[in-house]
Amino acid sequence: MGEKAFQDYYPDQMSYCFGCGRLNEHGYQIKSYWEGDVSICVFQPEPYHISIPGYVYGGLLASLVDCHGTGTAAAVAYRDQGRSLDSEPALRFVTASLHVDYLKPTPLGVPLELHGRVKEIKGRKVVITIDLFAKGVNCVRGEVVAVQIPDNMLSG
Amino acid sequence: MGEKAFQDYYPDQMSYCFGCGRLNEHGYQIKSYWEGDVSICVFQPEPYHISIPGYVYGGLLASLVDCHGTGTAAAVAYRDQGRSLDSEPALRFVTASLHVDYLKPTPLGVPLELHGRVKEIKGRKVVITIDLFAKGVNCVRGEVVAVQIPDNMLSG
Repeated sequence: MGEKAFQDYYPDQMSYCFGCGRLNEHGYQIKSYWEGDVSICVFQPEPYHISIPGYVYGGLLASLVDCHGTGTAAAVAYRDQGRSLDSEPALRFVTASLHVDYLKPTPLGVPLELHGRVKEIKGRKVVITIDLFAKGVNCVRGEVVAVQIPDNMLSG
Repeated sequence: MGEKAFQDYYPDQMSYCFGCGRLNEHGYQIKSYWEGDVSICVFQPEPYHISIPGYVYGGLLASLVDCHGTGTAAAVAYRDQGRSLDSEPALRFVTASLHVDYLKPTPLGVPLELHGRVKEIKGRKVVITIDLFAKGVNCVRGEVVAVQIPDNMLSG
């Protein structure tokens, strides 16, 4: 995909998140994009992101759900306001709660694809549901309750 | 603490988990211990385990809840059967679902302490609640639904 990802528009000082910060060289640097009304993120775990032999570590899967969820929440908020992702002021979200159901063991060694959908928008709160697929199989289902960061925390 | 941790008793082939495997050199290698009826885990995040500036990455917090939860579930199962942690057959648990409430931003730069408690034991399912503290403040509350791995997956 040639276009910029949601995370490429985050203000620099908010771009060190271990999961989604493009400036965190130790982190996952996930990238999320719209495909119609569904947000898409593709991530290839490392061989050491293992849980039981042959399967992906659940904490990584929770992390992907979390950051793809907050990224999608921000993108939804821009869209809901009829604004482009590069418009000011920046909108960023943090996670209030995270729920992850591990439907099936997620195989290691293949790219994982996350699909995010809006469940609810209410004031500064956005709820996103996430389905994670490996080889077309829905292995994980998650829900992220994301809350918009106060403007004064974005100006630092 | 001088005694062995729950995770030190995991069979070798189950000890590569990114969160709690003592043999995964890339991972967190968390350690959990009983203090009475509460399981304790202390973990110091790295400076790059950041979310927004000054605070710990939520995906790491979810990972700590997850692995301290499954470790506690196993320890609970041994105790429930009146067995020591080094007795055979080994009992190991995987996560069926994970819920994390981020009550307050968790400050980076201090050790985090997780307290695990049994909520429910039902057949092969054990539910653990986890409270995570930073400088004595309860920043995160989590719940892990853990399910015992079938014996034939432990013999590989």
